[in-house]
Amino acid sequence: MANYVLNNDTIAALATPHGAGAIAVIRLSGKDAIAITESVFFTKSLKPKALADKPSHTAHFGLIAEKEVVIDEVLVTIFKAPKTYTGEEIVEISCHGSVFIQQQILQVLFKHGARPAQPGEFTLRAFLNGKLDLSQAEAVADLIASNSATSHQVAMQHMRGGFSNKIAVLRENLLNFASLIELELDFSEEDVEFADRTDLKKLINTILAIIEKLIASFEVGNVIKNGIPVAIVGKPNAGKSTLLNVLLEDDRAIVSDIPGTTRDTIEDELIIDGVMFRFIDTAGIRTTTDVIEQIGVNKAFEVIKKSAIIIYLFDTHELSRGDLQLEMDVIKDHIGNSQLLVVGNKIDFENLDELKQEFGDVPNILFISAKEQRGIKELKDTLVNLFDTRTVNTTDTIVTNSRHVSSLNNAQAALIKVNEGLSSNIQSDFLALDIRYALEALGEITGQVTNDDLLGNIFSKFCIGK
Amino acid sequence: MANYVLNNDTIAALATPHGAGAIAVIRLSGKDAIAITESVFFTKSLKPKALADKPSHTAHFGLIAEKEVVIDEVLVTIFKAPKTYTGEEIVEISCHGSVFIQQQILQVLFKHGARPAQPGEFTLRAFLNGKLDLSQAEAVADLIASNSATSHQVAMQHMRGGFSNKIAVLRENLLNFASLIELELDFSEEDVEFADRTDLKKLINTILAIIEKLIASFEVGNVIKNGIPVAIVGKPNAGKSTLLNVLLEDDRAIVSDIPGTTRDTIEDELIIDGVMFRFIDTAGIRTTTDVIEQIGVNKAFEVIKKSAIIIYLFDTHELSRGDLQLEMDVIKDHIGNSQLLVVGNKIDFENLDELKQEFGDVPNILFISAKEQRGIKELKDTLVNLFDTRTVNTTDTIVTNSRHVSSLNNAQAALIKVNEGLSSNIQSDFLALDIRYALEALGEITGQVTNDDLLGNIFSKFCIGK
Repeated sequence: MANYVLNNDTIAALATPHGAGAIAVIRLSGKDAIAITESVFFTKSLKPKALADKPSHTAHFGLIAEKEVVIDEVLVTIFKAPKTYTGEEIVEISCHGSVFIQQQILQVLFKHGARPAQPGEFTLRAFLNGKLDLSQAEAVADLIASNSATSHQVAMQHMRGGFSNKIAVLRENLLNFASLIELELDFSEEDVEFADRTDLKKLINTILAIIEKLIASFEVGNVIKNGIPVAIVGKPNAGKSTLLNVLLEDDRAIVSDIPGTTRDTIEDELIIDGVMFRFIDTAGIRTTTDVIEQIGVNKAFEVIKKSAIIIYLFDTHELSRGDLQLEMDVIKDHIGNSQLLVVGNKIDFENLDELKQEFGDVPNILFISAKEQRGIKELKDTLVNLFDTRTVNTTDTIVTNSRHVSSLNNAQAALIKVNEGLSSNIQSDFLALDIRYALEALGEITGQVTNDDLLGNIFSKFCIGK
Repeated sequence: MANYVLNNDTIAALATPHGAGAIAVIRLSGKDAIAITESVFFTKSLKPKALADKPSHTAHFGLIAEKEVVIDEVLVTIFKAPKTYTGEEIVEISCHGSVFIQQQILQVLFKHGARPAQPGEFTLRAFLNGKLDLSQAEAVADLIASNSATSHQVAMQHMRGGFSNKIAVLRENLLNFASLIELELDFSEEDVEFADRTDLKKLINTILAIIEKLIASFEVGNVIKNGIPVAIVGKPNAGKSTLLNVLLEDDRAIVSDIPGTTRDTIEDELIIDGVMFRFIDTAGIRTTTDVIEQIGVNKAFEVIKKSAIIIYLFDTHELSRGDLQLEMDVIKDHIGNSQLLVVGNKIDFENLDELKQEFGDVPNILFISAKEQRGIKELKDTLVNLFDTRTVNTTDTIVTNSRHVSSLNNAQAALIKVNEGLSSNIQSDFLALDIRYALEALGEITGQVTNDDLLGNIFSKFCIGK
């Protein structure tokens, strides 16, 4: 897309996933969407079939054909502007899900005046037509990518406008003051104060508190969106990969009991009770009881630093309580804010009481047998609980997008300057400038303030057809 | 499915390809399809949204939610019986294309009384409700699998009833005679002939001629459906793999210039001008000028026998006219009905005239440089022409399904017995029996005569959601 002004032309693209399936949906949007479809739409006896005179939101059976060669029997649903996703005329053609048919239909649509849609162009048009704001548009992409209950709920809340509304309220309050201060500038010779400085200070502090909370929520938001990073650390023979396999195998079984669903398996992601955990490969990490081998250790500690949870796995036949303590002492220095979970593996169940006695004073300790798949349920429950204690309710507004955090940071910086200015009785014009900066930063989130680079950056990451 | 009687329950499945995309479609069919959807369908403010009172073929925006937790904003299209694909109430839920959302929506539908659809169950219901016959149902699966213009056109013709009609006409004509002959049996003491034996003989011969043509068309039909088998044969250094790469590379480029389409690349299939060619690996084939090495040769000749076209590729720098002749002599014994195309590779274009003079008397010879990608267009055109000379017009009825051929063979055998019986003035009851066999065989094709094994065999090969 050369630039992000609203185009007048009609776009078309496959809207359903690539590949063969029972059906596929091709979507058109633009002022000629219905007319273009009509030019290739026929009755069973190949007579032209009108669509423009039909009511909006109705489905019509017919043939897509070109020069009397039938491409497919299809169902065409028409949506008339402005009550559509993009705000333009929309047509959805539901065809048989053969890749060949999808291609053929797109080709005749292009031949009759449609143009291939760019990635995200349907949603871009919805944004440009005011059907949703920028953070809602971004939430559409997040929603499609969401693969856990929490990431889904956050994206859904954003798409439905929860986050946008919060930002809009902040912005509106600030706007009122901004206009009063700009008014002061117009009457600057007269030295009047339309904007009550005490009220303004109170407002700025309220807004700053909300922004701070939103910025802080990003830590959780990021974890919800990308998965909670969990490092499994331990000596090579501790049973790390067996444990990972047991965890993942179990998960696959859960997914596959829903007929008709398969998911691209990402080996090291695991959703437990709707929470996504992302296991980080620590192959190469090695701690020894007395010497930390230098090779790979820096990298390993980096992994530990990035993880929210660290599982330290050890072989209960190998490590004594004293050995474990030495290991713990080394690791603890690198943990930072992460939570440490100590897991004793390869237990014999007849000796469990002995083990519990020996290691009973270690905080957050669990005993499992990865090979015999015992204690796995408890481990999973513990992982979910560790997350729950860290997180907030998902009905709270949670920022998941680093672009939004960056804008919030800018707004925060500007508002802090406003606060300082108020304390030092700075001139109205400087105040006005900083308030305007803050307004701009907030407006970037919802798209009231925007530019081509920003839009290009956002929508190019969408899939085609959305 | 335990058996193939029409079930009263409501089925649901994902109808679009698996994976994430802009949108996905979940389809329900059955008497409670609309009621089940209503139980999870809400307005933007989470008030229940009625669907049953809406006209058929209309689309409605709303939320899918369970216990006030919003799963997605969706578009629900309702189709009321009997004018639907299955003949039952159908609902299509168009949701955001996240795998997580697809699963969640299916789960709540199952919770509210839908059951997971079996593979092909939507089309099975369409068949059981008389919306399409068995050969049309099979054509639906072929249509989805079709990946070339020819296989698509044949499947489309079958789905639209071209083949069914042909069989139905044959069957009806035969039925008339069958009833007359059965009538004779009722009056067997009186020794009357209701069915004119000369007319019957004429009819049987007409039907036999049509059946013969249909059976013969399978050779082409099979090739259309599965690709024309082409063996590239030649010495290891002849440039076989370079040629294959050049052919396939070119094809990929053609596919990828259509935005939004990618196809699962099957390395050795290639569509040229809408005709699919299937290149068969002859790695290991070796003919030498004097001795045919025994290892791998039997397998190689098997490949040659299975191929419709054999490309014999040779290095023009290596083989003289005499060498080539020796090679040809060996290969020709094994070709059978296949077409042989001799291709001289690695040509220097300045010597082309010389080459043409030396090899000019070899039939079907072409000169190329695979490495420099010269002569490739001519080679492709030749391949398409070789196919065209063998094939019939795709508007003719072409049998593509081995099950149909088997039924046609049975009908043919029974009708030949009828013919023999007529010649030897056999008793009416034997005639009636053979005619009934023929009727049954023809009825199997369109599904007038059917059984659970047959249906199970056909529909289990469908994808879920169709």
